Amino acid sequence: MDYQAIVDEALSAAETYRGHGDVASHIPALATVNPKKLGLALVLRDGTTYCAGDADEAFSIQSISTVFTLSLALQHVGGALWNHVGREASGSPLNSLVQLESDKGKPRNPFMNAGAMVVCDQLIGSDDAETAMQELLDFLRERAGEDGIMVDERVAMSESKAGALNRSLAHYVSSFGNLRNPVDEVVSVYFRQCSIAMSCRQLATAALYLACDGTDCRTGTPVLGPERTRRILALMLTCGHYDNSGDFAFRIGLPGKSGSGGGILAVIPGVGAACVWSPGLNAARTSLAGAVALERLVQRTGWSVFV
Amino acid sequence: MDYQAIVDEALSAAETYRGHGDVASHIPALATVNPKKLGLALVLRDGTTYCAGDADEAFSIQSISTVFTLSLALQHVGGALWNHVGREASGSPLNSLVQLESDKGKPRNPFMNAGAMVVCDQLIGSDDAETAMQELLDFLRERAGEDGIMVDERVAMSESKAGALNRSLAHYVSSFGNLRNPVDEVVSVYFRQCSIAMSCRQLATAALYLACDGTDCRTGTPVLGPERTRRILALMLTCGHYDNSGDFAFRIGLPGKSGSGGGILAVIPGVGAACVWSPGLNAARTSLAGAVALERLVQRTGWSVFV
Amino acid sequence: MDYQAIVDEALSAAETYRGHGDVASHIPALATVNPKKLGLALVLRDGTTYCAGDADEAFSIQSISTVFTLSLALQHVGGALWNHVGREASGSPLNSLVQLESDKGKPRNPFMNAGAMVVCDQLIGSDDAETAMQELLDFLRERAGEDGIMVDERVAMSESKAGALNRSLAHYVSSFGNLRNPVDEVVSVYFRQCSIAMSCRQLATAALYLACDGTDCRTGTPVLGPERTRRILALMLTCGHYDNSGDFAFRIGLPGKSGSGGGILAVIPGVGAACVWSPGLNAARTSLAGAVALERLVQRTGWSVFV
Amino acid sequence: MDYQAIVDEALSAAETYRGHGDVASHIPALATVNPKKLGLALVLRDGTTYCAGDADEAFSIQSISTVFTLSLALQHVGGALWNHVGREASGSPLNSLVQLESDKGKPRNPFMNAGAMVVCDQLIGSDDAETAMQELLDFLRERAGEDGIMVDERVAMSESKAGALNRSLAHYVSSFGNLRNPVDEVVSVYFRQCSIAMSCRQLATAALYLACDGTDCRTGTPVLGPERTRRILALMLTCGHYDNSGDFAFRIGLPGKSGSGGGILAVIPGVGAACVWSPGLNAARTSLAGAVALERLVQRTGWSVFV
Repeated sequence: MDYQAIVDEALSAAETYRGHGDVASHIPALATVNPKKLGLALVLRDGTTYCAGDADEAFSIQSISTVFTLSLALQHVGGALWNHVGREASGSPLNSLVQLESDKGKPRNPFMNAGAMVVCDQLIGSDDAETAMQELLDFLRERAGEDGIMVDERVAMSESKAGALNRSLAHYVSSFGNLRNPVDEVVSVYFRQCSIAMSCRQLATAALYLACDGTDCRTGTPVLGPERTRRILALMLTCGHYDNSGDFAFRIGLPGKSGSGGGILAVIPGVGAACVWSPGLNAARTSLAGAVALERLVQRTGWSVFV
Repeated sequence: MDYQAIVDEALSAAETYRGHGDVASHIPALATVNPKKLGLALVLRDGTTYCAGDADEAFSIQSISTVFTLSLALQHVGGALWNHVGREASGSPLNSLVQLESDKGKPRNPFMNAGAMVVCDQLIGSDDAETAMQELLDFLRERAGEDGIMVDERVAMSESKAGALNRSLAHYVSSFGNLRNPVDEVVSVYFRQCSIAMSCRQLATAALYLACDGTDCRTGTPVLGPERTRRILALMLTCGHYDNSGDFAFRIGLPGKSGSGGGILAVIPGVGAACVWSPGLNAARTSLAGAVALERLVQRTGWSVFV
Repeated sequence: MDYQAIVDEALSAAETYRGHGDVASHIPALATVNPKKLGLALVLRDGTTYCAGDADEAFSIQSISTVFTLSLALQHVGGALWNHVGREASGSPLNSLVQLESDKGKPRNPFMNAGAMVVCDQLIGSDDAETAMQELLDFLRERAGEDGIMVDERVAMSESKAGALNRSLAHYVSSFGNLRNPVDEVVSVYFRQCSIAMSCRQLATAALYLACDGTDCRTGTPVLGPERTRRILALMLTCGHYDNSGDFAFRIGLPGKSGSGGGILAVIPGVGAACVWSPGLNAARTSLAGAVALERLVQRTGWSVFV
Repeated sequence: MDYQAIVDEALSAAETYRGHGDVASHIPALATVNPKKLGLALVLRDGTTYCAGDADEAFSIQSISTVFTLSLALQHVGGALWNHVGREASGSPLNSLVQLESDKGKPRNPFMNAGAMVVCDQLIGSDDAETAMQELLDFLRERAGEDGIMVDERVAMSESKAGALNRSLAHYVSSFGNLRNPVDEVVSVYFRQCSIAMSCRQLATAALYLACDGTDCRTGTPVLGPERTRRILALMLTCGHYDNSGDFAFRIGLPGKSGSGGGILAVIPGVGAACVWSPGLNAARTSLAGAVALERLVQRTGWSVFV
């Protein structure tokens, strides 16, 4: 297949929606991003990369980061993680408090805000916030092969300043005894992981191990156990896009993860990974133009996991 | 691979759980089933079949029926179906009313009781309950190649007699104008589709078109459009097991559908279909031993969609 | 005090709101009422009556009827009634299903639709719908001293025809085993009690026993035990106006009961009863102009229970 | 009437329940209180006081404090307070988050934890936490005629240390922009007002102005406007005991306020005030023996507002 043509066509299909939707406004630093940005990167298992548009511009990866934090936390604590966070779709918006009440402080899945904070807490473990962040950054840098990946401190400060809701969630989870570390430390890691800046190319490259059953596709080096890898993909498929995860699976049929910065990371098992970026979000905070691009990509390639 | 050995091993792995869990008791006719039943059938795309245990004994397929009703309803009304029922996991038990209230009578997905009734209503369309049931039975008979498939009228009467909750759901959906047909007609189709009796072998055979992108795997005859087929599989993966759909995807990694009669149908895209039956259910009404058998089947074959 | 002047002034104060708000539209027969109607009757314990406006025109009493059905049901079954229905404000709209799910089919209070149906069911007891209705009508006729009080059959048929939501609630309650009688019989009594037509003067007169600790104020004849009477008033104060009961207590400070036909019955302990009617409702289905009239009445007389 | 005999009898009636129920355990400092404590004070409008049991022992008034903070906040900001907090019963436990989500950060009433914090925030206004606390203590000291009333700092520290849930609520309300002051300042006032120690006699005396339409019963000096006073009583009757407010109105028929320290303050309009203390709580955190004592007091005196 002429992948470059397909990537270009996917981007063209999304053109109509460029600038549509709402740019995330929950923090001021995100609200100022140019809504017209649109980029797509496809990285195959051998590392071959096909890009279009703004695929090399770094953006705020927001909760896409949780895919990687989750990988690391599973390495640290293994299946014990599931004592602290569930693995079911919530049927509720990303930041909902309702289910936390009936579920006694155990977030439904690692991809809701509260769940991501529980994952951060487990990653910190008995270390401290700084060590945890360093481990996450080292992992991303190694996976993406880019030493320059870092936290956008301006965004991180903005997250913290506008972080009343997330602080509320963290204190709430903590009130049920479901955080090991102080709330301030946990939200600090959470705000900073959300504020990491990466490009589509970097994200797709970093995610390759998820497409190769947990090994580095190019070298065959083990990164994460195969069963854990499949489970992360299952979680991405069932819960990766908040309360439009079902719609994403329905339309695109690939494990994916949306971030409110407008990025969507999608894994094509056995094949590679794709990442799209366009800041305008739909009502459920998934990139509007981004989802269209991925939909076309899958239509042209037949890469749905359901074939 | 020696599929017979794998099927036997899967059944053996489930042996420990034979008789565990609770047999569905919401209707008297189901409560009397022998909890020790355990059967598994694997049907490959060429029709080769591997069975173990009680794979040829008919049981009440309950909401597994919705997979087929949904296929037919999509043929009838196409994408307009999604105006009447959503495609998101609910995060709630199968028979929950809560979300129906906030969602104004539009069930979250076709696999919750209320959603299945909406699908039945669309299948009836401007016909009547009798015609709709006949169409469903004809479809199942043709797909399974068994003329003897029929409704267990004793179960259907029991469903109707104990059907206060489902009647409540139907009237509720109807109060929002989301049923075309009278409640009595809709629940009659719903109760009767749930009361269809089929064996593991028959169900797995009938589902083969879902494994071959919508065509009859053996003859290549189109049954359902490829896109619709993938979408049904996406719905099965994200919503096929009520509020343990995430756990099922996590453990087994295949599109599936549980029925409260103890059956689980699983589709292996490109490969075939499997069906397991064991009446003891977990808290979320998925067959306990059945899920263990499928888990082992996937571990041994690597048939997760996430590889 | 010059009560006639006060009643006139109360009506004048409400004039500004005459025709404001929304006439109940959940059933066609109510939607056609003249929204400009406005009437007020004040009946003191000795029977002296002061009227203004349309105080002698019969209207659909809707759920004001529950005050009387509740009185009769308590005579029949006593405190056992509270095994079937609670006595807490719900914090939810009158027809909400949400709490019924978590409360396992026991409505929060007798004044929500579902609770009123449970009260009807207890009134029927081991009799039939016809007998129960006759008992209720006889009670109202005797209390109001008017033989002509009857069900508006046109409204009752309209209630039944548009009754999907109430049927849903009744089936739901029934699914938890909380109805003794068939749903059809229960909703038939419920629809007919709501369809009783009475005037402000008749309602205020009929309610006098509630102002005199359960005795007929004029003759001293016992109608209901004093403790039960106080409890009905407590329920009216805390739950008589759905999810604006708190606001009504806050503004008016009297036990009252709203009906979606636009009537509000208020009891002034030790003094008498007042009834106002104006069809335009606020968002919580309490008569908008009616509440204003009662507010003024209380301001001028100081009849709040909190003084 | 022989009030001393009645007070003694009320206490005797409660004897059976002395030590029953659960002592509040949400903070360690409360969990250590002697569960056998039982005291009752009745203060008539002329100041005559009748006591029984531990009526002169100071206890943690907990959310009874909100009655007084609310009085002061209404003096400060008037009706504008109701833009920030509602006046409906919630139908939910005292510390529920669920409704805050659908109500966009506006607590249902001032007596839920979140609502009380909003009242504290309004009391602080543009001052600081220290000034607000001083004003509240001065008010209580003047009303009770006791200079020694103060915060139990050991309890306050315990509240703060175990305050994750309340911090969560405050951050949540703040995330909707419904707090003027920083969360830390608001919770500091909230924790300290809950930690004020007073005796039954002091509380009943301090509350006398609520029984006399807002004036000091003994001197006639205005304390709070009459309309505001009635409204506070309406709120106490409809929402003063969390999700058993209806039951309290039903059984006792007086405006009251429960505190999780085991105190219950009840106002008898026109007559006086009573306060009971017994640490064992029912499931809804109202003093179990305390409610029995008040029930008997009302049965013997006929002081229900519904007569």
